[in-house]
Amino acid sequence: MLTVTRTVEFCAAHRLFNPEWPDEKNLEVYGRCSNPGGHGHNYTLKVSVTGNYDKESGMVINVTKLRDILQKEVVKKFDHKNLNDIDDFKNTVTTMEVIALTISGNLRKPFSEAGIKLVKLELSESDKNTVTLEPK
Amino acid sequence: MLTVTRTVEFCAAHRLFNPEWPDEKNLEVYGRCSNPGGHGHNYTLKVSVTGNYDKESGMVINVTKLRDILQKEVVKKFDHKNLNDIDDFKNTVTTMEVIALTISGNLRKPFSEAGIKLVKLELSESDKNTVTLEPK
Amino acid sequence: MLTVTRTVEFCAAHRLFNPEWPDEKNLEVYGRCSNPGGHGHNYTLKVSVTGNYDKESGMVINVTKLRDILQKEVVKKFDHKNLNDIDDFKNTVTTMEVIALTISGNLRKPFSEAGIKLVKLELSESDKNTVTLEPK
Amino acid sequence: MLTVTRTVEFCAAHRLFNPEWPDEKNLEVYGRCSNPGGHGHNYTLKVSVTGNYDKESGMVINVTKLRDILQKEVVKKFDHKNLNDIDDFKNTVTTMEVIALTISGNLRKPFSEAGIKLVKLELSESDKNTVTLEPK
Amino acid sequence: MLTVTRTVEFCAAHRLFNPEWPDEKNLEVYGRCSNPGGHGHNYTLKVSVTGNYDKESGMVINVTKLRDILQKEVVKKFDHKNLNDIDDFKNTVTTMEVIALTISGNLRKPFSEAGIKLVKLELSESDKNTVTLEPK
Amino acid sequence: MLTVTRTVEFCAAHRLFNPEWPDEKNLEVYGRCSNPGGHGHNYTLKVSVTGNYDKESGMVINVTKLRDILQKEVVKKFDHKNLNDIDDFKNTVTTMEVIALTISGNLRKPFSEAGIKLVKLELSESDKNTVTLEPK
Repeated sequence: MLTVTRTVEFCAAHRLFNPEWPDEKNLEVYGRCSNPGGHGHNYTLKVSVTGNYDKESGMVINVTKLRDILQKEVVKKFDHKNLNDIDDFKNTVTTMEVIALTISGNLRKPFSEAGIKLVKLELSESDKNTVTLEPK
Repeated sequence: MLTVTRTVEFCAAHRLFNPEWPDEKNLEVYGRCSNPGGHGHNYTLKVSVTGNYDKESGMVINVTKLRDILQKEVVKKFDHKNLNDIDDFKNTVTTMEVIALTISGNLRKPFSEAGIKLVKLELSESDKNTVTLEPK
Repeated sequence: MLTVTRTVEFCAAHRLFNPEWPDEKNLEVYGRCSNPGGHGHNYTLKVSVTGNYDKESGMVINVTKLRDILQKEVVKKFDHKNLNDIDDFKNTVTTMEVIALTISGNLRKPFSEAGIKLVKLELSESDKNTVTLEPK
Repeated sequence: MLTVTRTVEFCAAHRLFNPEWPDEKNLEVYGRCSNPGGHGHNYTLKVSVTGNYDKESGMVINVTKLRDILQKEVVKKFDHKNLNDIDDFKNTVTTMEVIALTISGNLRKPFSEAGIKLVKLELSESDKNTVTLEPK
Repeated sequence: MLTVTRTVEFCAAHRLFNPEWPDEKNLEVYGRCSNPGGHGHNYTLKVSVTGNYDKESGMVINVTKLRDILQKEVVKKFDHKNLNDIDDFKNTVTTMEVIALTISGNLRKPFSEAGIKLVKLELSESDKNTVTLEPK
Repeated sequence: MLTVTRTVEFCAAHRLFNPEWPDEKNLEVYGRCSNPGGHGHNYTLKVSVTGNYDKESGMVINVTKLRDILQKEVVKKFDHKNLNDIDDFKNTVTTMEVIALTISGNLRKPFSEAGIKLVKLELSESDKNTVTLEPK
């Protein structure tokens, strides 16, 4: 199996905070990540897709096409923003898991239209912490 | 499937040496890695786990909990040590494979108690060499 | 000349915004960096110091001492915070230049007490952008 | 399952160009990657193999053996070359996909002779673009 | 002193070759770097500038301005090109030293117009090799 | 001024320990770095040199020559060794400062013979700790 992976970055602020919980519980669960003013990260996102390998062009997907989709669906939306202000996260916390699931959902339609399929999505908020989503 | 990956580092000395072999065989099999005084590495370990995704907290596992387990089971034990002196490796060589299998074994109980499951463990001794263990 | 460099990271939110300017000027000067909700970075700070080389210990400065000072003066203060909320930046914008100058000022007293001297301070907000301060 | 991964680099020129297509189509499909004079990359290749774990030596494969095979089959052939000049790519374009498939084919015999099996091959032409091949 | 550093990348082919020398001398001096078909690199360029620190904006130079200059003078010109085909290098070899000196020359006018001064220019062709130019 | 920088790595064990001090003092000064069995690192060394820029070859120093000197004087001597066993460190501790000063001394003669001059030497034992030596 052949997959193509494109890596993008976005710099965003966020605060881990469940509005249905009292402050103490937020502090207990999320620790310093729930500081009221928020904090931020240079998020790194690696998106791996597969598709039909075209022998003539020698490509599974034109990486330029993949770049354009990620630029529109991820970078334009999230870069230099506060994630908590974004519609996608209005009713959720902004853990790496939720961000990864949200991006994965947002990519479904454009990927389907481009004839490609998400194989793996890796979101890192730092060199130390990463969440990986592999659709069944 | 959602997995959470935490990366830790430990700086350790080691020497590849099978005490049941004559020196020539150790040299033949392990080359300069069997130099009597040993050598060392900044080991990088990436541990990926899965568990039940909790919609309320938006987390598979609290990365703080994962960090604490790895701190106790890996960093405290191996960092700034000579691996050959550690009980875990008393009767074995200290190849990347053995270190990975040993850490994987050590993590079984604390991971089970934390309700998480090891999905992948990657141990790198340098930018060039990595061993990956994926439990069935 | 011998210098010792210690690298630390802090994850913080910020917004480039001069309160004495109208919104349009902020947008014109700072662009997307002035988005009202702010954004964030994994900042990397490299601090280089010099001092008297002690032949007996073989050290210019005990790197543990340097680590402790940076932990107290930088990481504790800035990590997982919104820089705009911090007293140090109450009346200033939070450009890399201002952050670097502020940290440099904060380090003067503890460095002097430790018998070391700041030689260079490099602050990066990403792989692309860095500010370097070299006191005369 | 245990796998061993070795990372190598090669610096090569290439030009994306299908000789059966008119220039306009090459430009349309490959964009600036079809510039007549070509361009180049520091390619990074990660090759992951598995085999029988030998308890006595503590190794799946002697990483020195793996290094030698990759040195002969990849680095010697491709490093400091123009990929378009190499016999392997005489009748093909030199997309990451084709390079990965070609290397995978070239490794089949030496890996088989060494008693190991290719599990994954990752070829990156930059920090942004990677192709991954996982044989079934 | 405050300096601002911007890092850009360009992927280019080149061949080390002095047309006034016989082939044997080129091979002797430049080794595999003189292979007729050329080879290539992901070049990394770090450009450090200084200027008047503006207290009001908190900036030495707007990093967006610096980015635009480098985009125009470096990336647009060199990225996805064969350096040997570029006018700048028509009568020279394309060693790192020559590329660095050429870029430095090209930046003189736009930097002067922007009121900034080149302090340091670092060009790397790989993780191993770098040339640094510091104008007096 | 033009300088050429070459980066090499060596994987070594060491123990910080002054034999003239009692164990308690070693522990107090060097902490866990004085663990009796030692520990180890992947050391990274960046050596910057300058020389006469030769317009004909376009080089300050042939990077192949620089590589050969560092291979002989640094990598061959230190890689996959225990630094404390090496003659160079028989009567000294093996702090980054001492290693940097020692390597600098060892390079004096071969650099002089090659017509180049050491400008800067950076030794890192990890991503966090670096020592820099700049001869006057």
